[in-house]
Amino acid sequence: MLVELLLTAAALSAAPQEPAQTELPSIPMEAASVLSRAKRTAQHLEPVLVHAEDQAAASEKLAALRAKTGKRPNIVWLLVDDMGYGDPGCYGGGATVGAATPNMDRLAREGLRLTSCYSQNTCTPTRSAILTGRLPVRTGLTRPILAGDRIKRNPWTDELSLPALLGNRGYNTVLCGKWHIGEAEGMRPHDVGFDEYYGYYPAQKELSQAFDKRRYPDLALNPERLEMLERTGASEALIHGVKGGKTEEVAKITSTDDVAEGDRLLKEWTVRKIGELAKSDEPFFLEHAFMKCHADNFASKAFEGKSAGKYPYKDAVVEVDAYIGEIVAALEAAGVLENTFVFVTSDNGPQRDSWPDSGTTPFRGGKGTSWEGGVRVPGIAYWKGMIAPGRESDELFDLMDLFMTSVALADGTNDLPSDRYYDAIDQTSFLLADDGHSNREKVYIWWGKDPMAMRMYEYKIHHRILKTQEAWLNIDMTTVHDVGLAPWLYNLYIDPKEEYTVGHRMNAWLASMGSELRAHAATFRRYPPKNIGL
Amino acid sequence: MLVELLLTAAALSAAPQEPAQTELPSIPMEAASVLSRAKRTAQHLEPVLVHAEDQAAASEKLAALRAKTGKRPNIVWLLVDDMGYGDPGCYGGGATVGAATPNMDRLAREGLRLTSCYSQNTCTPTRSAILTGRLPVRTGLTRPILAGDRIKRNPWTDELSLPALLGNRGYNTVLCGKWHIGEAEGMRPHDVGFDEYYGYYPAQKELSQAFDKRRYPDLALNPERLEMLERTGASEALIHGVKGGKTEEVAKITSTDDVAEGDRLLKEWTVRKIGELAKSDEPFFLEHAFMKCHADNFASKAFEGKSAGKYPYKDAVVEVDAYIGEIVAALEAAGVLENTFVFVTSDNGPQRDSWPDSGTTPFRGGKGTSWEGGVRVPGIAYWKGMIAPGRESDELFDLMDLFMTSVALADGTNDLPSDRYYDAIDQTSFLLADDGHSNREKVYIWWGKDPMAMRMYEYKIHHRILKTQEAWLNIDMTTVHDVGLAPWLYNLYIDPKEEYTVGHRMNAWLASMGSELRAHAATFRRYPPKNIGL
Repeated sequence: MLVELLLTAAALSAAPQEPAQTELPSIPMEAASVLSRAKRTAQHLEPVLVHAEDQAAASEKLAALRAKTGKRPNIVWLLVDDMGYGDPGCYGGGATVGAATPNMDRLAREGLRLTSCYSQNTCTPTRSAILTGRLPVRTGLTRPILAGDRIKRNPWTDELSLPALLGNRGYNTVLCGKWHIGEAEGMRPHDVGFDEYYGYYPAQKELSQAFDKRRYPDLALNPERLEMLERTGASEALIHGVKGGKTEEVAKITSTDDVAEGDRLLKEWTVRKIGELAKSDEPFFLEHAFMKCHADNFASKAFEGKSAGKYPYKDAVVEVDAYIGEIVAALEAAGVLENTFVFVTSDNGPQRDSWPDSGTTPFRGGKGTSWEGGVRVPGIAYWKGMIAPGRESDELFDLMDLFMTSVALADGTNDLPSDRYYDAIDQTSFLLADDGHSNREKVYIWWGKDPMAMRMYEYKIHHRILKTQEAWLNIDMTTVHDVGLAPWLYNLYIDPKEEYTVGHRMNAWLASMGSELRAHAATFRRYPPKNIGL
Repeated sequence: MLVELLLTAAALSAAPQEPAQTELPSIPMEAASVLSRAKRTAQHLEPVLVHAEDQAAASEKLAALRAKTGKRPNIVWLLVDDMGYGDPGCYGGGATVGAATPNMDRLAREGLRLTSCYSQNTCTPTRSAILTGRLPVRTGLTRPILAGDRIKRNPWTDELSLPALLGNRGYNTVLCGKWHIGEAEGMRPHDVGFDEYYGYYPAQKELSQAFDKRRYPDLALNPERLEMLERTGASEALIHGVKGGKTEEVAKITSTDDVAEGDRLLKEWTVRKIGELAKSDEPFFLEHAFMKCHADNFASKAFEGKSAGKYPYKDAVVEVDAYIGEIVAALEAAGVLENTFVFVTSDNGPQRDSWPDSGTTPFRGGKGTSWEGGVRVPGIAYWKGMIAPGRESDELFDLMDLFMTSVALADGTNDLPSDRYYDAIDQTSFLLADDGHSNREKVYIWWGKDPMAMRMYEYKIHHRILKTQEAWLNIDMTTVHDVGLAPWLYNLYIDPKEEYTVGHRMNAWLASMGSELRAHAATFRRYPPKNIGL
């Protein structure tokens, strides 16, 4: 019943083919149901929960800081690859799961630890969403687009990326590390807005597979296959690129040892770069995207066996944690720590399929699923002097909100075009007010071009579910199912592992939550998604 | 193959029937395998890991405290019923799962948070083990013995309980709260060593079921069944008993409201009692055993709806947490906080079967199973001025160790008889040295009279497993299985959820771990278990 009312992939695909309309279909401005308290302020903006006191407190803090520094704040994102919610010590992991994380724990202790922080379910969707402020299904950036890929159209040409917007506002913008949103010209970080890029385009295993005779002997020992792999044009190098300038290969990957040392090189570059950026009269935006701990992990020389667990994944967590400490120390050494908003997170849940080279989560499922294990990630907001130490919040935060929050910190909100829908929400007041509340009421959980689930308050409703056919295989052995008579509804406060659906017991909400989903669908009718099935 | 070598329930049952031997079979004193570094110092004592520096540091601290107070330390155990490892905020729960726990979090922050702390898999086994220092299978105290129970023999008559031993050492000893280890005369707390008892003999649902027309209408609305229930003699009252003195019913339970207020009454009594005990020239041992959060939870008036989750279980967690804060405050108000060792824990994993009236765990399984979810519990050691704030350790602690540690703190080690085997280990040096290491190398996990599994370092080996036939039903829908060709072996650092057995990949250890289990079996040949199948 309810399912008919919902947005479906088929409807989405059909949307662009509909006859052109002279007037855009409008999105209702009022709340979709009695469940909602969020307010929509414009057709192209996601409804927000307004907390006037928090806003006032945040504005006051920002104004005081601006008066002191004379600059808008720097923004630093530290994005770990495939780290599980249950990996950092401050999220119940750490030494208990074989890899202590003293640096992340300290940042959490001295900042805000978010416990309902949501990513997309895999790498590229999250990475594109946080740089565009839009759901991957809207942009078409739903999957890694590699050099060998024959795509119809570069989705980036339709987007205003965060670094482009911040650049227009005078920010210096740098991406260091993994990219994974297109290797072709026009799709590289320095093509889409970043001033400078230093890093590796793909994920670790794409760099190492050709040299890994233990895990991929069928590839690494077969010259014919290796030659084919090379002809796909996949990047196997450390790249340095400058906006409007040269793109060069700094170093070729020629062994798994090279992969092992990748994050060290990236960290060294970022630490140096922070020293340079800090000297500029302009603020900076730095996204440091770790290669680790994505499979396949190879322990770097300095960190091999340094974790209690000894596994490459565990050593990788220890290494990443140490580098997070060093990067924050570099901000401090450069004298910019108090003017820099730092956010530490992961791009999705743990990739259980590569177990034991994999992280952990206390939730159901993992990377590649719409269960909490796939999309609930650590989120540590740290800003010395601006975010009160020891804060914790279970209110909703979508990693996309990093986009809108960063835009707001740069005073760039008026630069946003209104011809496209923004799913991101400005969370400045949540993050900065000492007892701030989230501005987000709902998180929509997509899986490629399929809407799957919605988190709202303590509830999560699924209209399609992914059934993992082996406990630890989520991407490689999963089937997609429509729900039966009723959506699957969980109260995450009493059932954080999503084990016992209570759709019928809680059917007071079913119609209302359906209305919320229809309101979400309406945004796609007015702003049809682009590049579906790219 | 390996299974044949292992201790089995059948062998145990047979043991007492073997012909009497003039000489006891001896237990090898040397390490059972190359895996072991623990030393056995006597036939009747569990091997221990000796850390001389930790011991020296702990002794020095204790001597300094003794010099200051002139007393041996007080001992306070705060035992929550059925609280899950994942419930307290400091273990990754708290507000994230609908019930903030600021008091437990604070004690953890200012003390030692143990992350590999083990209970038995259900209530009575844990409660008897911590008071006897011995595995339930050795004592026969493997299940609640209720008034209607016709038992052959009172197992307590064979045991020297902790309160009896501490009483001999001059301690005042008090149990407040749940008992569940026998209601018949001779088995009550004040019969087996405690000076005084104030509490309820059974678990909450046994108190409420007759009045609960929502959950047990087939009982509560059926006078004939109610009359039968009454004739079992099950206690339905708040009891006050004094050693060698009167046992009286302070108040009858006549409604679920009475059950709801139980913990408040217990807390009020304990807070008052602390004031009295603190005035004595002698130190005291206080076990405060909460009724909550065992199903069925009824929110007390003051706490109804006080949790974010609103469920009775969640309100119960908030209530228990508040009372933990009040009890510690009472110790401070009485001026004894710095001379009191406080330990907060739960008697087993969450009872998932009563969901949603149930806690959570990030691990596999729940109460009633030998999976981590059944036996890994929160363990917070707090001792102002004696345990360094902010400590965390993943080294092994068995709740039974509370017995031997308490004996040691009371200088009572020489009072222990040598005619029985003690599974408990003195962990004083682990707890008190600023960077102390555990004295325990292995935790044996039993299930009634069946040995099931062993934790050793980061490994856990199962020779029998419990398969839960529904995700959330662990006691009510579980079957017992012998393992197949190889034991099920997990590395908990990389597989904390016990999902992917690696017996064959790690078969270097199988023979050695088998030897460790045989060494454990040898302790049963020398000291045959009593009261099997009571």
